[in-house]
Amino acid sequence: MLTEKFYEVLKHEGVVSIVSWGAEEAHVTCTWNSYLVVTGDERILIPAAGMRSTENDVNQNNKVKVTLGAREVMGNNNYQGTGFEIGGTAKFLTTGSEFDMMKENYPFLNRVLEISITSAKQLL
Amino acid sequence: MLTEKFYEVLKHEGVVSIVSWGAEEAHVTCTWNSYLVVTGDERILIPAAGMRSTENDVNQNNKVKVTLGAREVMGNNNYQGTGFEIGGTAKFLTTGSEFDMMKENYPFLNRVLEISITSAKQLL
Repeated sequence: MLTEKFYEVLKHEGVVSIVSWGAEEAHVTCTWNSYLVVTGDERILIPAAGMRSTENDVNQNNKVKVTLGAREVMGNNNYQGTGFEIGGTAKFLTTGSEFDMMKENYPFLNRVLEISITSAKQLL
Repeated sequence: MLTEKFYEVLKHEGVVSIVSWGAEEAHVTCTWNSYLVVTGDERILIPAAGMRSTENDVNQNNKVKVTLGAREVMGNNNYQGTGFEIGGTAKFLTTGSEFDMMKENYPFLNRVLEISITSAKQLL
């Protein structure tokens, strides 16, 4: 579901926003493009240190929306810049081989936010 | 409510996410740091062309959350990179002197998203 353009965005640094919503107001937490690890089967792994509001929401409703982009990557119709909105379901991992791999690369994490992608839309 | 650090972030390009939520799921729309105009009284004006889901949400619940950041700007504790979460209330403008000023600078807009800030939190 992820295009070459998506992976091109990941090569540039930028702010990633992760939106969640439980019973009440929506929450948003942020990370960096360079912190996203895409698995062979297209799940996104993100190091999590805080993200407590996200986790509370996910316990009620595991849907999330993730936005990211890069001005450096050409969008549609020769527009300078592109971005993506990824829809998915989220889970927090605290053990396992993927947790260990992520911990090695991002020692500051205490959980891994795993997002299973359900949609990927290029915005520009 | 906006600090010098916030204005420093605006000098660097990046993705801004605007989160809204009405009765159902949350929505998120994106723009660029360079598209944000801060008024003298600290409202944020953003050119809007699409943003229809945002507008629908705002008609039900005018609260929004805005995230942005820059890896180039030093955060707290010597962390390389910083970001902000802005809370506010949103309104779409279609007329008036601020609309005209924005239209001159961003000819592609058909509305202006005006955010009155209620909170501003440096995340890093």
